Amino acid sequence: TVASSASSTLYPSDRDPPTVSGLVKGPAQRDHAQRKGSKLIWGLGKHWNPPHVAMKHLKPLKSVQLRGTGILDYDNSENQLFLEEERRMSYLGFRCLEISRWVVCGLIGFLTGLIACFIDIMVEQLTGLKYYVVKENIEKFTAGGGLSISLILWAVLNSAFVMVGAIIVAFFEPIAGGSGIPQIKCYLNGVKIPRVVRLKTLLVKVAGVICSVAGGLVVGKEGPMIHSGAVVAAGVSQGRSTSLKRDFKIFEYFRRDTEKRDFVSAGAAAGVSAAFGAPVGGVLFSLEEAASYWNQMLTWRIFFASMISTFTLNFFLSVYNKNPGELSNPGLINFGSFDRNFLLRNRLWVVISVFVLTCECGGPPGGLLGALFNALNYWLTIFRIRYIHRPCLQVMEAMLVAAVTATVSFIMIYFSNACQPLDVVQGEDYPLQLYCDDGEYNSMATTFFNRPEKSVQNLFHNPPGSYHPLTLGVFTITYFFLACWTYGLAVSAGVFIPSLLIGAAWGRLIGIMLPVFPLQIWADPGKYALIGAAAQLGGIVRMTLSLTVILIEATGNVTYGLPLMLVLMTAKIVGDYFEEGLYDIHIKLQSVPFVHSEAPPTSHWLTAREVMSSPVTSFNRVERVGTIVDLLSNTSTNHNGFPVVVSNANGEEPAKLCGLILRSQLIVLLKHKVFVELARSKLTRRKLQLKDFRDAYPRFPPIQSIHVSQDERECMMDLTEFMNPTPYTVPQETSLPRVYKLFRALGLRHLVVVDDSNRVVGLVTRKDLARYHLGKHGLEELQLAQT
Amino acid sequence: TVASSASSTLYPSDRDPPTVSGLVKGPAQRDHAQRKGSKLIWGLGKHWNPPHVAMKHLKPLKSVQLRGTGILDYDNSENQLFLEEERRMSYLGFRCLEISRWVVCGLIGFLTGLIACFIDIMVEQLTGLKYYVVKENIEKFTAGGGLSISLILWAVLNSAFVMVGAIIVAFFEPIAGGSGIPQIKCYLNGVKIPRVVRLKTLLVKVAGVICSVAGGLVVGKEGPMIHSGAVVAAGVSQGRSTSLKRDFKIFEYFRRDTEKRDFVSAGAAAGVSAAFGAPVGGVLFSLEEAASYWNQMLTWRIFFASMISTFTLNFFLSVYNKNPGELSNPGLINFGSFDRNFLLRNRLWVVISVFVLTCECGGPPGGLLGALFNALNYWLTIFRIRYIHRPCLQVMEAMLVAAVTATVSFIMIYFSNACQPLDVVQGEDYPLQLYCDDGEYNSMATTFFNRPEKSVQNLFHNPPGSYHPLTLGVFTITYFFLACWTYGLAVSAGVFIPSLLIGAAWGRLIGIMLPVFPLQIWADPGKYALIGAAAQLGGIVRMTLSLTVILIEATGNVTYGLPLMLVLMTAKIVGDYFEEGLYDIHIKLQSVPFVHSEAPPTSHWLTAREVMSSPVTSFNRVERVGTIVDLLSNTSTNHNGFPVVVSNANGEEPAKLCGLILRSQLIVLLKHKVFVELARSKLTRRKLQLKDFRDAYPRFPPIQSIHVSQDERECMMDLTEFMNPTPYTVPQETSLPRVYKLFRALGLRHLVVVDDSNRVVGLVTRKDLARYHLGKHGLEELQLAQT
Repeated sequence: TVASSASSTLYPSDRDPPTVSGLVKGPAQRDHAQRKGSKLIWGLGKHWNPPHVAMKHLKPLKSVQLRGTGILDYDNSENQLFLEEERRMSYLGFRCLEISRWVVCGLIGFLTGLIACFIDIMVEQLTGLKYYVVKENIEKFTAGGGLSISLILWAVLNSAFVMVGAIIVAFFEPIAGGSGIPQIKCYLNGVKIPRVVRLKTLLVKVAGVICSVAGGLVVGKEGPMIHSGAVVAAGVSQGRSTSLKRDFKIFEYFRRDTEKRDFVSAGAAAGVSAAFGAPVGGVLFSLEEAASYWNQMLTWRIFFASMISTFTLNFFLSVYNKNPGELSNPGLINFGSFDRNFLLRNRLWVVISVFVLTCECGGPPGGLLGALFNALNYWLTIFRIRYIHRPCLQVMEAMLVAAVTATVSFIMIYFSNACQPLDVVQGEDYPLQLYCDDGEYNSMATTFFNRPEKSVQNLFHNPPGSYHPLTLGVFTITYFFLACWTYGLAVSAGVFIPSLLIGAAWGRLIGIMLPVFPLQIWADPGKYALIGAAAQLGGIVRMTLSLTVILIEATGNVTYGLPLMLVLMTAKIVGDYFEEGLYDIHIKLQSVPFVHSEAPPTSHWLTAREVMSSPVTSFNRVERVGTIVDLLSNTSTNHNGFPVVVSNANGEEPAKLCGLILRSQLIVLLKHKVFVELARSKLTRRKLQLKDFRDAYPRFPPIQSIHVSQDERECMMDLTEFMNPTPYTVPQETSLPRVYKLFRALGLRHLVVVDDSNRVVGLVTRKDLARYHLGKHGLEELQLAQT
Repeated sequence: TVASSASSTLYPSDRDPPTVSGLVKGPAQRDHAQRKGSKLIWGLGKHWNPPHVAMKHLKPLKSVQLRGTGILDYDNSENQLFLEEERRMSYLGFRCLEISRWVVCGLIGFLTGLIACFIDIMVEQLTGLKYYVVKENIEKFTAGGGLSISLILWAVLNSAFVMVGAIIVAFFEPIAGGSGIPQIKCYLNGVKIPRVVRLKTLLVKVAGVICSVAGGLVVGKEGPMIHSGAVVAAGVSQGRSTSLKRDFKIFEYFRRDTEKRDFVSAGAAAGVSAAFGAPVGGVLFSLEEAASYWNQMLTWRIFFASMISTFTLNFFLSVYNKNPGELSNPGLINFGSFDRNFLLRNRLWVVISVFVLTCECGGPPGGLLGALFNALNYWLTIFRIRYIHRPCLQVMEAMLVAAVTATVSFIMIYFSNACQPLDVVQGEDYPLQLYCDDGEYNSMATTFFNRPEKSVQNLFHNPPGSYHPLTLGVFTITYFFLACWTYGLAVSAGVFIPSLLIGAAWGRLIGIMLPVFPLQIWADPGKYALIGAAAQLGGIVRMTLSLTVILIEATGNVTYGLPLMLVLMTAKIVGDYFEEGLYDIHIKLQSVPFVHSEAPPTSHWLTAREVMSSPVTSFNRVERVGTIVDLLSNTSTNHNGFPVVVSNANGEEPAKLCGLILRSQLIVLLKHKVFVELARSKLTRRKLQLKDFRDAYPRFPPIQSIHVSQDERECMMDLTEFMNPTPYTVPQETSLPRVYKLFRALGLRHLVVVDDSNRVVGLVTRKDLARYHLGKHGLEELQLAQT
């Protein structure tokens, strides 16, 4: 891994855009630098900003992780084959397609709900068993003083669970580690990380999350649900499984990136919905991440999948809980119901100010702690990438964390004497008496000795006085560091619940302390816990709209919408000042060309001319096979889209654009040997169908695997029928925000830049746009890895 | 008004697209026909569909209403002035802008909430007064038998209220009539109906809705809130009021269509949010209608406005209700809380089937009744357009409806003897005893003699046995016809609540009848009422995602999400089979070029070549003033966007595209006499700024008001600086769905069609796209009014 340091350029005059001569050269140079074969990685490249902003050299980023990613084509290649098929289809055909889309979404929702249900039940069974065994043991030894045996029992049990979880992740499917949310964000954004939506990944993910939660790690099982939903969607919608080598010959129409991504959005939404009982939040999560052209029917379908998912989970859990029909568990976690009362002892305006103040004040600690969490986790991740990259080391680290978590919890339980009367709390599953008097229980023990979801609910709803302030303080600190250490381990696990738990703990602590001030809006410290939980979660993940809606839906009360939103906003603003969001950090570490939803605000200085890659490798409409094979085999120019041009009589000047063809299409053409000469000789030869492209999707063979003989190299290939004859184009003078808008709104992969006579002068790809980035000191240009 | 009958063309060969020669002629002919001066209106023009679909001549539509509408530019004209301004702006400047956007959204939410609160309180006070007077009167006369005096008193009171409401609407601001939702849908879609977002409209709307609700019409006050929110947004965001002739010199940056439409989205969302206590539903309503490029920060801001709006309403209502801090009224209506229990007496799979069956069965009656409602209302509207177009007639009709409503209610109360024991119902504000025994009340009277919102809640939550089936049946029928007659009157009023009420009545009726069957999922007929209400509302308005979310939020319970969604879906499918949605009908009657979110499915046959208007009127980069004035004054070609071209040496062939300029820009240029010659003579002349365009926005003077002398006509105008140098273009071969997608995703107003050398061959405008429409018999082409 190589980190490249930064060189910088400044524009010559005050407000003039750069001169043409300087610029035509610029991109070409960069292009050359990027393609010279060495693997460049995330680091700070050319630092660039408008003249009036102070220029500063930034230290290059240290970190590094390289992956062979792909890009999704969200723009249909409307070539002749495609148009023919669409035109052949009757209105009834379109209706049938639409119906099968709904059926697929329903299936996605149902299966995702079932998976959530399975995970929940398994975790409950396993943890129940574990707690039972350990509790028996502790109660046996409390008086006798042999508690270290209990500790060892606990630590061993936990480590054993975690070991299983870590082994399957580290050895069988590393991509199933973590929450999977960064990977799904990438997928929805249009970047495909290898193996992320395979069946094997799903199996490892589900088994892994059961093990890690049962192993007592500081993790949640909600994040992985999103990944699981996405895998289910990618599998169901294709009507075949490459892993199982089964093709059900259904849903063949959906075998392309456009449709598949739509279904994966639905799957992710169904996952969120099952995790938090938040169908609307799920839809908004998908929209926020997929963030492309708003499609009404698609959105409604996504919502349908979410609904089905949450309903399935709810229904089967109600059956499992021997209470069929009492549908009160729409998600894996819900926050329970809060009343709607605000304390209004004072005048109207005082109340409003205090209200706003409270919400605004919840944000900064959340943002600060979140930024600290992210920064620590960032360094930890880099450390892991450098030194803990061997699977066995990863398993050992996971086991170590499990043991330490068990030990720390145990020590804290041991030394705390936060005894609380037993009758205060309703429905504690495992109250531990330890050294407390009879009729009392150890509240610290209860917080640790519980499923984290239950602890969150307790912090929200237990009546005032259930927790000692010191307990909460110590708990916050310990849990914070444990959670930070845990995230990024080679286990399948989410960060939502730990974040909520940390936040709820310090929020409740503040709520307990607050009555010393004369002003407050709620009497119940549980509501402050809710605000704290939102602040902490927002400070770590920095999601906006979708997180607000998820929390509102989990709370089940729209009255808390405004406070939650205010606190999430301030947490995000404060957090963003110091450090990026956790998911963004991990996405960045994976060095993928992630295109954000808007161009950086000060990027009007840049035009397509500076942004584009040039010169462009293009093909003629009828091209020699040898040329195509050579260009595709050239590893230094690993292009995926090629403009097709019509040359002038004199081949000197750039030729006129007449289409765009993709690498994958060329490979299928080569594989089927669609050569002009062969077509002439064998008249009966079957015409290539769209089906041939679909059958090869999504794992197109590499060019190396296709054998082309020396004779065939001299044949010609006619691309007319297969190229997209109407690619989107922009003139060279188009400003970056305009290019960005077009690119993002239509989910493009390639945008051809043409001059005023429609001649190709460059190509804007995702990587060209992902480079620009608003840092603290103005616009910065990053260097991305070769993908 | 002229309705043109249909002529049809069929494609010659089976799968071939039409030949070029035939097509270049086609659009030109149509173009000519459309522009020959006669006012064409909605009617069925060329009926066109792919060969394999049976062709059928459809009767031309009868109806007709013509308006001078405008189109919004949702694509920024990135000319030199604009880019200069953007480049001059520092990062801090962008931050400040962003903050002011948030402030504006907060203000929008706050003011919308206040308006909702004002309307609610006024209505409550006025109806309270009215009911009190009438109840006293009835109780006085019940024994005496002089109830006809009570009837007259009631009818007169109601008519008086309605008269005031109708007079202000009919005489002062007709656009304030109805719910305003079709108009706001148009605005968000990009069509601007004149005077729709003015201050005067808001005042009339608010006063009108208070009068019509207080006048006992079968209307709701929820629909108008959406319009009110939109007006507030359009006003606040511009920092000035043209009506009041005040310019506060703030928010000048926001004075363009792009920004204004964003704020209007926020306003509409805030309106929905205040009406139903559904902030998320509001956001989704705006997205569904605005339905353009998904912008994350914008969506979050819209959500903020919604939150503030619902919170403001909730807070002030809690203060008004002497219960400050008990925030239990997030909207003007909420459905109260339902429990989560489903009846599961049978086996699992039976239950699921019954559940699905129930939901699916709720849809068809809703869809059927909705379609009937819409069809009746459609004919009624056409009747009104023809015969009741004078304001005084409109006022008289409104008064007649008010009197009839009062009479019918009274008669039904009089003849029904649906006596119910008084203690069953909690919180009836005005229980009427009439001829019932002591300790009983007349349930029919209560249903009529109540604010409709309260009646809806009663139907949902009153315990089984509160209503007699006959009462419900008669009520459904009467209310159905009254509501249908009322919608479209010249009063400001919504259709949501009447729809809910009709649906709740028949839903509850079904719920009461159901126990005779062995299978049911709920014991409580109130839940069937909820399903019925959703079905009826969905059958009438046919909204999808947003309506589902609005109803879920109004119910406050995610468990009912799936049943609600299923019932809305079936209601929509059934309803769509017979008749369009109510809002769509009214939009169509207004003959505006409404662009739906997706191209009709079978439109891959069409390409930009057939769709575009041609020949195109274009300007040279440096153009003679006389030419510009003449072209702009030409009323037969009322174009709004003109390609700017660079001619070749020989001016014969079509010239190369180099930009796009708008009518509004040209008018500002002419007004400021930005002529090349003048610039040379007066060197000190101030350069035209973006500010000059903003000051003229949005009411650009007509070309006729600009005086250009004979000398000046010979001057030249250099358009380089002012035109958009990088308009979006497509090649001629682009398929209609692709054009549609680009157009819709970027919110374009003009899309230039170019040939392979970037020469202008046509222009696709909104009207060209809005023409194509999927009828029951395939693709149809509509003829739109000259706008």
